[in-house]
Amino acid sequence: MKVVFDEIRLNTEKRKELVEITKQVAGIVAGSNITNGICVVYATHTTTAVVVNENEQGLKEDIVRKIEEDFPRGSGWQHDKIDDNADAHLAGAFIGPSMIIPVKGSALVLGTWQSIFTLELDGPRSRRILVEVLGE
Amino acid sequence: MKVVFDEIRLNTEKRKELVEITKQVAGIVAGSNITNGICVVYATHTTTAVVVNENEQGLKEDIVRKIEEDFPRGSGWQHDKIDDNADAHLAGAFIGPSMIIPVKGSALVLGTWQSIFTLELDGPRSRRILVEVLGE
Amino acid sequence: MKVVFDEIRLNTEKRKELVEITKQVAGIVAGSNITNGICVVYATHTTTAVVVNENEQGLKEDIVRKIEEDFPRGSGWQHDKIDDNADAHLAGAFIGPSMIIPVKGSALVLGTWQSIFTLELDGPRSRRILVEVLGE
Repeated sequence: MKVVFDEIRLNTEKRKELVEITKQVAGIVAGSNITNGICVVYATHTTTAVVVNENEQGLKEDIVRKIEEDFPRGSGWQHDKIDDNADAHLAGAFIGPSMIIPVKGSALVLGTWQSIFTLELDGPRSRRILVEVLGE
Repeated sequence: MKVVFDEIRLNTEKRKELVEITKQVAGIVAGSNITNGICVVYATHTTTAVVVNENEQGLKEDIVRKIEEDFPRGSGWQHDKIDDNADAHLAGAFIGPSMIIPVKGSALVLGTWQSIFTLELDGPRSRRILVEVLGE
Repeated sequence: MKVVFDEIRLNTEKRKELVEITKQVAGIVAGSNITNGICVVYATHTTTAVVVNENEQGLKEDIVRKIEEDFPRGSGWQHDKIDDNADAHLAGAFIGPSMIIPVKGSALVLGTWQSIFTLELDGPRSRRILVEVLGE
């Protein structure tokens, strides 16, 4: 069994934003010398999530709009007394920081329309996304 | 270490629907010759999610009703200009396509009330669910 | 490859509640003799979820408030005719029972603000959280 770790560093530009990272993750898988296994894409942050969906410009805007509608900033949250970003923590907690994608034949198993994204919920910030490839 | 891949093919019948796949996943685990490890249940689609919960007819209807209430179709989404299914992408992005279930003693670790479902969000369609068993 | 299973037992005290389990999970990882791999934290229940976020008292109250707002009890759910907890199943289905955290250098990879929680949705109850460490 082999385990390979790498990380993706990125600087987000907006408060809420989807940043595609499929190519970087695929490159780490390709360089891992692992043929079959899994890839863990993991954000080491509490106001960032990892999602898999289609990279279409309108849809990316829809996802941000939906997050803003469902998790509006400044709704009297307790955490806002300490740090004005409870909305970002709530969305991060429910969507989650961890995504597992199968690795088969030395490549990520992704459907035709599937791309991997970092979902920034409290940017702009510097973010680190850990990528772990485990297999044989 | 061993890695076994298989897939479940299914044809959904409604736009939004829960289809239980526990038996098929359990059968793949049983046939994998893997005693201890993990099972990844992964939908290679952007308008399908994988969920684990109770298979009770009323609850399945409640889950579909809740999805329809929280992700109503045709709310002025940008993606609807391209393909009239932004609601399905949004629910799929937030709930997610990937579920990991422990494998112990050659069987899935599932609680008494836990069943595995494909959550169809934009059917009826033909769907492929990848099942990967990794372990020893 | 090694696979180690253990479990965390806890008794929740409220209907909806976040119970931090980071130390227990970290202790299982430390005792596993696994250097690099993954840790699966898995609730074998349909009205419990596993989340990773910040352990700040106000934020924990915000998360519970948000769950209660988004999944209000007694909204005419079908499942309430059988068992008066459809709200708990709905939140559990959408947030999910399974969380994967990388293990590197014999420790969980957690960001500065990341803690692991059991999210009780239908307590008070006795709960079992399975912890699986897989790696080398």
